[in-house]
Amino acid sequence: MTYVLGIDGGGSKTVCVLMDDSGQILGRGEAAGSNYQSIGIEATFKAIESAIHTAANEARKIINTITIEAICLGLAGVGRASDIEVVKSLVQELQNSKILPITWSLQPANIVICNDALIALVGGIGHDVGIVVAVGTGSIVFGRNYQGSTKQVGGWGYILGDEGSAYKIAVAGMNAALKSYDGREVATSLLDAFKEHFDLENIEDLIEVIYRRQWGVKQIAALAPIVDLAAASGDEVANNIIDDAVKELVKATSTVIDAIFIPDSIYEVVTTGSVWLSRSKIHERFSASIINKFPFIQVIYPRFEPAYGAALLALQSLVREEE
Amino acid sequence: MTYVLGIDGGGSKTVCVLMDDSGQILGRGEAAGSNYQSIGIEATFKAIESAIHTAANEARKIINTITIEAICLGLAGVGRASDIEVVKSLVQELQNSKILPITWSLQPANIVICNDALIALVGGIGHDVGIVVAVGTGSIVFGRNYQGSTKQVGGWGYILGDEGSAYKIAVAGMNAALKSYDGREVATSLLDAFKEHFDLENIEDLIEVIYRRQWGVKQIAALAPIVDLAAASGDEVANNIIDDAVKELVKATSTVIDAIFIPDSIYEVVTTGSVWLSRSKIHERFSASIINKFPFIQVIYPRFEPAYGAALLALQSLVREEE
Repeated sequence: MTYVLGIDGGGSKTVCVLMDDSGQILGRGEAAGSNYQSIGIEATFKAIESAIHTAANEARKIINTITIEAICLGLAGVGRASDIEVVKSLVQELQNSKILPITWSLQPANIVICNDALIALVGGIGHDVGIVVAVGTGSIVFGRNYQGSTKQVGGWGYILGDEGSAYKIAVAGMNAALKSYDGREVATSLLDAFKEHFDLENIEDLIEVIYRRQWGVKQIAALAPIVDLAAASGDEVANNIIDDAVKELVKATSTVIDAIFIPDSIYEVVTTGSVWLSRSKIHERFSASIINKFPFIQVIYPRFEPAYGAALLALQSLVREEE
Repeated sequence: MTYVLGIDGGGSKTVCVLMDDSGQILGRGEAAGSNYQSIGIEATFKAIESAIHTAANEARKIINTITIEAICLGLAGVGRASDIEVVKSLVQELQNSKILPITWSLQPANIVICNDALIALVGGIGHDVGIVVAVGTGSIVFGRNYQGSTKQVGGWGYILGDEGSAYKIAVAGMNAALKSYDGREVATSLLDAFKEHFDLENIEDLIEVIYRRQWGVKQIAALAPIVDLAAASGDEVANNIIDDAVKELVKATSTVIDAIFIPDSIYEVVTTGSVWLSRSKIHERFSASIINKFPFIQVIYPRFEPAYGAALLALQSLVREEE
């Protein structure tokens, strides 16, 4: 029997899946985040090692000897050659780990390092053709066609891009509330909604909350549901913000489609991330607009998690070798 | 003879002006920034004390004994009651300073503490009626009418607002360049302009510059001239960004006008800050649009600096007392 590891190294958590070559999952482990650019290489190693440890221990309950023949790591923000070298040395270090109850038999071709969008695509759809529209704190659209060509749009982060993201929705909501307070724009229930949320007597104290308490991107992004809820309750300003976000996501998705798919071909678009869990029907608005432009496309929620997609890509590296 | 101090406590520098009751400036001093919310109260005290020291030494060359009878401090971000208490105790401490070659005779009514927008307005116009449109790293519009009513629009900072600011122009420029690179928007010379500016082989490395080197708001705002220059050279995308910025500033100014000035009254609008020094004629675009809506208004560049405005306000506190 052949075993592989699929690893999803996200900013807030690391997930490892141990899979056999029939596609069955034998173990799964979670650990802390593993974005080495923000937490450093040592902490990243510990998180990945810990997630593998948990997954392997689970698998060991039913299998005596586990030899890993392929590994795929999907990591946020990894793309440049220097990043890939760092991750490769990390895989080398994993093979020397004293605590992992597994053995290794890795050929270079079976160490697959890719960005998190690809594993989300493969996990979400169940194979490696289609488009993933990942919209959480940030936003990115990534597609791969039948020939293996890929195209990415967005993923530029909260300062330079991230259109349609929770961060951008939250910031647009606060901006609209403050413009309404200034008398620059029409009234919106967002003003009271933010005051209530933070228990502020005066909306001017929002400055205290956002700047002096040094709120980070994730904390601000977590305010997006306030805008979503206001939109669901019929607030026009909030609805315009949601519509703008949907338009940006449709535009980014259309750009990927036009770049790598031939017209009228059939494939799926999978939506991942927190923004899609919306009361104001962001998913429905997006889906309707995409299908209107591209009638042969199916918009789906993810079938499996990204770590599962990583394991599938690890398996695929073995199959390709045998071909 | 009566002497007063006007102090402009900005984020990057502190300016002190020593004025007599005829309005003549007898001394001027500069020191480091004095935004106590970011650098702390002790460093703020030192900066203000140092600026006063320089101004007083200059004045002492022509006057033997200087008794300060009023002081006005215009400080960024000061508005709330707790802030004002902090600044009052700082003025108390100044009166106990051993190094200042002046004596003090301050009544409570002659300690004037206000935000930086008011001293920019009074300095820029030369009296305390009109509107200041302050657009540098951030943006704020502040007005005061003949009855003394004031109105502020904007000033919400780089996350929540600052429409039309250098920061927002720079970010919009980079966003447009990246959207063009993605294939989402039309081509723009901004893409090459940013690549050249940072000497990047690939625009994707902009992520490295902006996020990993942890660029701050001021560093990003300093990129606005790249967009301004592209607009001046006829780039349509850059021109749209400049037009959007101007529209936001016109909208904010119009809101202040509608709130506190009666139609067809005559007053001046003074523009302060780095954004107005523009190759793409931001000042002309703004001025034309404002005069088109409000034909009796004059849009001017500042006549005097904000510290001068602070000194005028200090003088005014003495006149009011005598009335």
